[in-house]
Amino acid sequence: MYRPGIKVVDCTIRDGGLTNNSHFTAETVRAVYKAVCQAGIDYVELGYRNSRKMFSPEEFGPWRFCDDEQLHEVTDGIDPGATKLAVMMDAHKSTSDDILPSEKSCVDMIRVATYVKDVDKAIGLAKVAHEKGYETTINIMAISVEGGPELAECLRQLEEETNALAVYVVDSFGALYSEEVHFFVETYQMHVKTKEVGVHMHNSQQLAFANTIEGIIKGANFVDGTLYGLGRGAGNCPTELLLGFLKNPKFDIAPLLEVLGEYILPLQKEIDWGYHVPYMLTAARNLHPLAAIEWMADPDKKEDLIGFYKKLEIDYE
Amino acid sequence: MYRPGIKVVDCTIRDGGLTNNSHFTAETVRAVYKAVCQAGIDYVELGYRNSRKMFSPEEFGPWRFCDDEQLHEVTDGIDPGATKLAVMMDAHKSTSDDILPSEKSCVDMIRVATYVKDVDKAIGLAKVAHEKGYETTINIMAISVEGGPELAECLRQLEEETNALAVYVVDSFGALYSEEVHFFVETYQMHVKTKEVGVHMHNSQQLAFANTIEGIIKGANFVDGTLYGLGRGAGNCPTELLLGFLKNPKFDIAPLLEVLGEYILPLQKEIDWGYHVPYMLTAARNLHPLAAIEWMADPDKKEDLIGFYKKLEIDYE
Repeated sequence: MYRPGIKVVDCTIRDGGLTNNSHFTAETVRAVYKAVCQAGIDYVELGYRNSRKMFSPEEFGPWRFCDDEQLHEVTDGIDPGATKLAVMMDAHKSTSDDILPSEKSCVDMIRVATYVKDVDKAIGLAKVAHEKGYETTINIMAISVEGGPELAECLRQLEEETNALAVYVVDSFGALYSEEVHFFVETYQMHVKTKEVGVHMHNSQQLAFANTIEGIIKGANFVDGTLYGLGRGAGNCPTELLLGFLKNPKFDIAPLLEVLGEYILPLQKEIDWGYHVPYMLTAARNLHPLAAIEWMADPDKKEDLIGFYKKLEIDYE
Repeated sequence: MYRPGIKVVDCTIRDGGLTNNSHFTAETVRAVYKAVCQAGIDYVELGYRNSRKMFSPEEFGPWRFCDDEQLHEVTDGIDPGATKLAVMMDAHKSTSDDILPSEKSCVDMIRVATYVKDVDKAIGLAKVAHEKGYETTINIMAISVEGGPELAECLRQLEEETNALAVYVVDSFGALYSEEVHFFVETYQMHVKTKEVGVHMHNSQQLAFANTIEGIIKGANFVDGTLYGLGRGAGNCPTELLLGFLKNPKFDIAPLLEVLGEYILPLQKEIDWGYHVPYMLTAARNLHPLAAIEWMADPDKKEDLIGFYKKLEIDYE
């Protein structure tokens, strides 16, 4: 009934941090960490380890940098069980100077996010991370605007030049339909034969969970979710839905439901995430959701759907 | 790029009427009707034509009965274009006495909703409707608990004994995953060779739009949506998402966006629909969402997700 090789990565705090400049309280991060560990989820990603040269510590909270000291504050005393700790580094916004030897860190895995054009930077970071003792993945963003010979070359390089456990299809725009998910997973499998394929989906068209399932059906074994889909714009694939689908008896959904009710749902008072028509309109045009996020941030415009539609028509045609 | 045979049915007022006992104002229904016609959608379903013997007119609004007089009030003076008008009759809650000869009615299509066990009632109603000059469909509810020899017999009967244009897969519990949608559409096609297959999906697991697409990929040519997914519990497949996927140039999404912003989004102040964890929990157990809807109706319980999870464990194990 279930496929034991599938690894679930809960990235609630990391991806959710894009909604609030990574300003979660330590209490919230600790509660999420504890629940994800108790639920038996394979990896928990607690933030970015990005460079202070590119993100001001005055503007961004601790989970944009994930110093080991901060990570210890929210993980010490909690039994991780089989759950490993991950952080993400943006290829173009991080420096390998921030990677400690793994024996001096509580981090197990470093996931490098990159655009196809920055793949050489990503490979450099992933190599250093691997040499310093970490598991690594490479997460290729904005995949819905790729697909030609550049992607093939990028994938071949990742296969030959890295020790990444997985290479990810990241649908940053929430633009993919199921047949496109199949295409990308199969393209990855063709070029990246010795590594797993991962999928990270966005919900602009209410397809994040469905597309994750389609990735799994085609063989993707690394799958990302966030609690209640917390994330920028329409958000992500909800981790709680994933566990229901996967049916692996090692997972226990109950701790997730507790932290959802106590810590995640209350965030809705401060953070507005989930499906809204403007996100669907950018996704249908295969655009980054940024224009929709800006539109939605203005309370006077939020329900003026036709206004946003006309703006897109003028801006992009 | 698009498949011309696909017919879209917008059932915002009919299915949405399950959230408010069909008490939409005539102004709202008229605005939805006008927008759906302007958008070039194939059918607009404005309510149930159920029996006053089973639904009290004191408790239920006009769109539970859809008298022709009421329908005229919201449609007269609006150019329907190519859009046809539909109403739904529940096989076990309607009487053929309420079907006027079609030349005396503004209704074009009668959709008969039924459980497998009530199929003979449904066939009786559909026959009368056909004889009186209407297009018909048969919509088989709660399909996720069917699948055995009874369903096969039911489908063979519908093939042989009705003139329905389409027979629908209705995922009342929002429980289906894509592979199950494929299974049901293929099973229908095997038995119902001379009619189209339709799909009506619910969003309990955020899969309504995705499952509609999967139905289309397998050949379903009648597809249901509601504006912004308005519907009981987690709601339905959003019509606006469908149009983005279908890419048929006869459709114009702009009128839908206008009515969405002006009439549908404001309903969120009175009606609470869309994804919530309790709906996912009933769907994952292949249960009707009723227990979740009742739980969600109590503001003190709404965020007690673990409480609902434990209740289901006690009630159903």
